[in-house]
Amino acid sequence: MPTRTDPLIHPLLRGRWSSRSFDPTYELGEDELEQLLEAARWAPSAGNSQPWAFLVLKRGEPAHERFVQMLSRGNAPWVPNASVVLVSLFKSGDDEDPSFTYSDYAEYDLGQSVAHLTVQAGSMGLGVHQFAGFDHDAVAAEFGVPASWTVTTGIAVGRYAGSVDREWDGRERVRNPLSTFVFTNRFGEPRWS
Amino acid sequence: MPTRTDPLIHPLLRGRWSSRSFDPTYELGEDELEQLLEAARWAPSAGNSQPWAFLVLKRGEPAHERFVQMLSRGNAPWVPNASVVLVSLFKSGDDEDPSFTYSDYAEYDLGQSVAHLTVQAGSMGLGVHQFAGFDHDAVAAEFGVPASWTVTTGIAVGRYAGSVDREWDGRERVRNPLSTFVFTNRFGEPRWS
Repeated sequence: MPTRTDPLIHPLLRGRWSSRSFDPTYELGEDELEQLLEAARWAPSAGNSQPWAFLVLKRGEPAHERFVQMLSRGNAPWVPNASVVLVSLFKSGDDEDPSFTYSDYAEYDLGQSVAHLTVQAGSMGLGVHQFAGFDHDAVAAEFGVPASWTVTTGIAVGRYAGSVDREWDGRERVRNPLSTFVFTNRFGEPRWS
Repeated sequence: MPTRTDPLIHPLLRGRWSSRSFDPTYELGEDELEQLLEAARWAPSAGNSQPWAFLVLKRGEPAHERFVQMLSRGNAPWVPNASVVLVSLFKSGDDEDPSFTYSDYAEYDLGQSVAHLTVQAGSMGLGVHQFAGFDHDAVAAEFGVPASWTVTTGIAVGRYAGSVDREWDGRERVRNPLSTFVFTNRFGEPRWS
């Protein structure tokens, strides 16, 4: 559980954390899933380019089975317990010319979209844990991802169990102080010391 | 004003929109500014790498004056009315070897961090309008940005005026339907048609 997160920030941001303890019995309804993706959909993007896509891999469905084979050893024990995994992708090139940069902000905008989804999930009592440890190339091949799109993160969504895996979840959340990354006048000069 | 955004998503996400109509008299307090950056600070990132930084350019301060000279022609009329501009940066390389990729997810994580800041701003009654139209190289030079960091977006924050610039703000918010970017089994196969 988060313990010392700044009390001034909004509860949906303050209360967010990445647990590995998903309830393996919790079934996510299609309505809930659609709400999550609506939140992602309404995120802002450069010139409203909306350079994102998601593969939905729901526990119990064949596509989910195919995906879990591609998890890293560290993620294989916990990711399959989540109700759904979304694989996020951003549009990185043109269909005719994949070396063409679609938008300088596509990866950034995908991050925004996933953050909106995460906030939405929190408001629905759901937990989100993003992860990078899976075979990206294998996923691209297995799910027919065009060369103009880049497989990015895995997003595990479900209900946190809370009672297991305390060693991980009991870790205090930590962040760098503002003085190390909030500058004024010049890069490296702290706004607040 | 947003009109037809999906009513199922959280009010802080549903109510968000990018206006060009900032109240040029609204002064943002340092406490408010710090709250916004605390929200950015507590965003998730790959391996807790926190690959973000922000330049704070507050209206009325010399650094803000320096920045507004670098705005594109389209942004010069409205950005200076915002109470503050934050320039976002992600860590793209190593200080010794800027060609080294610091994190494959740094730009994505910066996007998440800014999205958290945006949600926080909404909860405080503030508006956020991100923009790309400014001279990135000039900002990097003027503000002493190391080669290992990449100047990314401008983030205008303030109170929306609401009564001016109706032509822009009256535009309906639009997004692609879920069927175009939410897939299952295979890239391109809609989860919901």
